[in-house]
Amino acid sequence: LKLNVVVAEAALELVPTELQRTTVVRNDSLRRGVNPSRMLLDRSFHHVAMLKLKDDFKRGRPDIVHATLLSLTSTPLYLDGFVTVYVHTHGDIVLEIKEGTRLPKSYLRFRGLMEKVLSEGGGEGLITMRKATIRELLKDIQPDWVCGLSTQGVSMSLEELSGKVIARKNPCIMIGGFPHGHFSSETLKQVDELVRIHSRPLEAHVVAARLLYVIEKRIEEKRTND
Amino acid sequence: LKLNVVVAEAALELVPTELQRTTVVRNDSLRRGVNPSRMLLDRSFHHVAMLKLKDDFKRGRPDIVHATLLSLTSTPLYLDGFVTVYVHTHGDIVLEIKEGTRLPKSYLRFRGLMEKVLSEGGGEGLITMRKATIRELLKDIQPDWVCGLSTQGVSMSLEELSGKVIARKNPCIMIGGFPHGHFSSETLKQVDELVRIHSRPLEAHVVAARLLYVIEKRIEEKRTND
Repeated sequence: LKLNVVVAEAALELVPTELQRTTVVRNDSLRRGVNPSRMLLDRSFHHVAMLKLKDDFKRGRPDIVHATLLSLTSTPLYLDGFVTVYVHTHGDIVLEIKEGTRLPKSYLRFRGLMEKVLSEGGGEGLITMRKATIRELLKDIQPDWVCGLSTQGVSMSLEELSGKVIARKNPCIMIGGFPHGHFSSETLKQVDELVRIHSRPLEAHVVAARLLYVIEKRIEEKRTND
Repeated sequence: LKLNVVVAEAALELVPTELQRTTVVRNDSLRRGVNPSRMLLDRSFHHVAMLKLKDDFKRGRPDIVHATLLSLTSTPLYLDGFVTVYVHTHGDIVLEIKEGTRLPKSYLRFRGLMEKVLSEGGGEGLITMRKATIRELLKDIQPDWVCGLSTQGVSMSLEELSGKVIARKNPCIMIGGFPHGHFSSETLKQVDELVRIHSRPLEAHVVAARLLYVIEKRIEEKRTND
């Protein structure tokens, strides 16, 4: 099993050109001593400027991406090399977290790393960056099953879902990396199955932690039975 | 069931007096425009100054506390009011996160909140603060079982552990809120059972996510069987 996890439509991007001259962005830039074009868009600071943006409610939440990536990369499954982690952003940029990469646990260091990667097109070999839609990313991954997790999906227990995952060789699970709303229609077109794993909507980092835990348990059980 | 979770000996504190005049702390203070006495100690920035501190390897990691609190407070069990969350710090301060409190997901906002709470002795009713050792905290909680999670404990599956938890009325689980090392002897004296839940050492936020997930499942199963 090689599990691919895509944090899809992630709310991670540099401040878009049209917001770089707004007051809140310029103040934040002065305070931080960083050029607006090299800063992450962050709802915590740029809220007022973001109201004019298209899809603003799905954007500018690097904290969500950070928490989700930490949930994924702190698991035994990831540390043992079973999981490849991708971030697909709202703006169709794909970051691949190379196996063995230890991401910064400190948010400020994570922000610095993401600003470097997105401004300079890569991060010292640990993280690669390219322009790609979900469709193009999946063409590269060549998964034998694509499952999207969404409150709009068919209810299924994590145990059942995990059984389906470990029955495949190269499955791909997509977790939404945004605070509100649903996958776009372009993303939904790429999904073989859309699954809902809880009666409540869950945050992406909670989904990530649970998913990898239950898959880990299933792999262990299978090993014991074999 | 009312589950008490204590993030114990958490690496959360204001910059101690003896470090407030060091170069790294003063530079950080100037950059942020915050008085050193009101800043969180943070290894990411104060590493050089921290080397002189007692137990330095267990201190100055507010990111760990943030990630662990988000893992705990984003779960359905917490949101449904089954869990009371406490932070007991290395310096014997206890924060109680009042039921229903939504902690900031943005680290910078969390840092601001913690600096306010620790400097001013409380946080707008959502978080209470007092001086208390683990022993004094447990006197207040009056738990019917105290379980510490540690790699030094007896191996037990999370399923088995969860069974023990839900058999109690007012259990207390302690998760270490520090990056390295083990519970202090004072903490260990308060523990009824010391349990290891994985062959690997796991980060506190991973432990928190798994623990609450498995307990949630056990409660659901119990409800279905009743």
